[in-house]
Amino acid sequence: MKTIHTAAELKQCITDQKKADRTIGFVPTMGYLHEGHLSLIRRAKAENDYVIVSIFVNPLQFGPNEDFDRYPRDIERDQMLAAESGTDLLFHPSVEMMYPKQPTVTLKVSERADVLCGGSRKGHFDGVATVVAKLFMLTQPDRAYFGLKDAQQVSVIEAMVSDLNLPVNIVPCDTVREKDGLAKSSRNVFLTKEERTEAAGIYAALKEAGEMLLSGMNVNEAQKRFGRSLAQRVSGEVDYAEILSYPELLPPNDNSARLIAAAAVKYSKARLIDNILIDRSSDGKEKRNNDV
Amino acid sequence: MKTIHTAAELKQCITDQKKADRTIGFVPTMGYLHEGHLSLIRRAKAENDYVIVSIFVNPLQFGPNEDFDRYPRDIERDQMLAAESGTDLLFHPSVEMMYPKQPTVTLKVSERADVLCGGSRKGHFDGVATVVAKLFMLTQPDRAYFGLKDAQQVSVIEAMVSDLNLPVNIVPCDTVREKDGLAKSSRNVFLTKEERTEAAGIYAALKEAGEMLLSGMNVNEAQKRFGRSLAQRVSGEVDYAEILSYPELLPPNDNSARLIAAAAVKYSKARLIDNILIDRSSDGKEKRNNDV
Repeated sequence: MKTIHTAAELKQCITDQKKADRTIGFVPTMGYLHEGHLSLIRRAKAENDYVIVSIFVNPLQFGPNEDFDRYPRDIERDQMLAAESGTDLLFHPSVEMMYPKQPTVTLKVSERADVLCGGSRKGHFDGVATVVAKLFMLTQPDRAYFGLKDAQQVSVIEAMVSDLNLPVNIVPCDTVREKDGLAKSSRNVFLTKEERTEAAGIYAALKEAGEMLLSGMNVNEAQKRFGRSLAQRVSGEVDYAEILSYPELLPPNDNSARLIAAAAVKYSKARLIDNILIDRSSDGKEKRNNDV
Repeated sequence: MKTIHTAAELKQCITDQKKADRTIGFVPTMGYLHEGHLSLIRRAKAENDYVIVSIFVNPLQFGPNEDFDRYPRDIERDQMLAAESGTDLLFHPSVEMMYPKQPTVTLKVSERADVLCGGSRKGHFDGVATVVAKLFMLTQPDRAYFGLKDAQQVSVIEAMVSDLNLPVNIVPCDTVREKDGLAKSSRNVFLTKEERTEAAGIYAALKEAGEMLLSGMNVNEAQKRFGRSLAQRVSGEVDYAEILSYPELLPPNDNSARLIAAAAVKYSKARLIDNILIDRSSDGKEKRNNDV
């Protein structure tokens, strides 16, 4: 595995791959890799000839009072883990490389961006869309892999690809969890022991909401119970606990076939997010029956 | 020359060219082609293996009270002219093809966009940037050709390519003019005979401003005289007559080496724009001396 830092080096590598008619799989990350990222890398490796992983903590998607400066970083550990998981090229640009000056042409997300994480993180998804578009232009992948832990991000990226005709296939991948159900996250290292233990309650509340919805419970009632249940399970501050249609992220009604139940909880040094997707269509039912 | 209407057909053509390692030159237009467009096409043909021309009147860049509906269109004449000038592929999509629904992820231009044409056309350059980005994604050109009659557009597109790392080279091309100096424009057909005659005064006023600036006149003084001179030469309403730094489009000072003098004049049925670029650097001086 090669680690590079500049657009020029990247361009050379990509040109070589394209000339050899090799497909490129791309996994954009902010580093501090965990099992969730590694599962994306392994899937990219299985489905493409060449795998590029980027590690870039993007200042554009952090608000002024957010954790950009103290977002965890460990490039040496990341290099080892990325290499072991099948990465061919690690792209690790500096902020100056990605933004030589304040960009004046950026992406603007006008739907799906003001709910859930966008409610308390104004401009967050504009920053995400802008950096992902830039990384797509730089890496020119055939397929790009995103974890569904950030389902709202997946929804925004899919809208971006469709609205701007970006020539890349988005592959959403299931959330990887700890044994007790907590979604893997780079921010989990900031939890105290007690917080870490009870944080499993986030997924428990999500699963419960999913079961209520699949059993045919009215969406409003499920929403109420989900909010109550989450608040009882965690001591952290519940930023949101919501059920919306997916991928539109609009207020759902009882006919909405695809739903997302999503939550964000603020602990002393970390804000955790998690979600589950619920498919109430006949297709979804069939799938679940086949799973049994 | 082949005319196609869908992204799927386009993709096939592009894949073939890329496989054959042929370079693609791209000329985006709104149609009703004139000598200015044809000079772009001929240059694209000279510098690339394969030339794609798009004809698309983009609703996103027209304001609610602008001339989207009555923008002149003549696809059969355009096909003939495009073919004669060396076009290999004419891409003529419908509005529904380009915008199957209202896009929710678009481009936002936060500098260079509120002056000159952006002053009276709010959101115009967001619409331009969005459609040009989409067309670049669809046509994947090595080089794209833009006329400097729309110098502000060139400046915005160059900022977009730089800020978003788009893998395309922008080639700005000199404005093509009628014998009396009027810049070629699809909207010139809307001028009355009298308007057409006096419209040559726009370029005369621009040239005069350029000469004043090159002779060392103070920018503020040149600005005043330019405004007065244009107003005297034309009966149409002067929308703007400004001297700015180029490509930043900021208020210039006497040290600004590269300047643009730009004007927009509203006639009864057409709003005309024109500009000249002025290079007061030592490089610019040398160039001019060599021209003589």
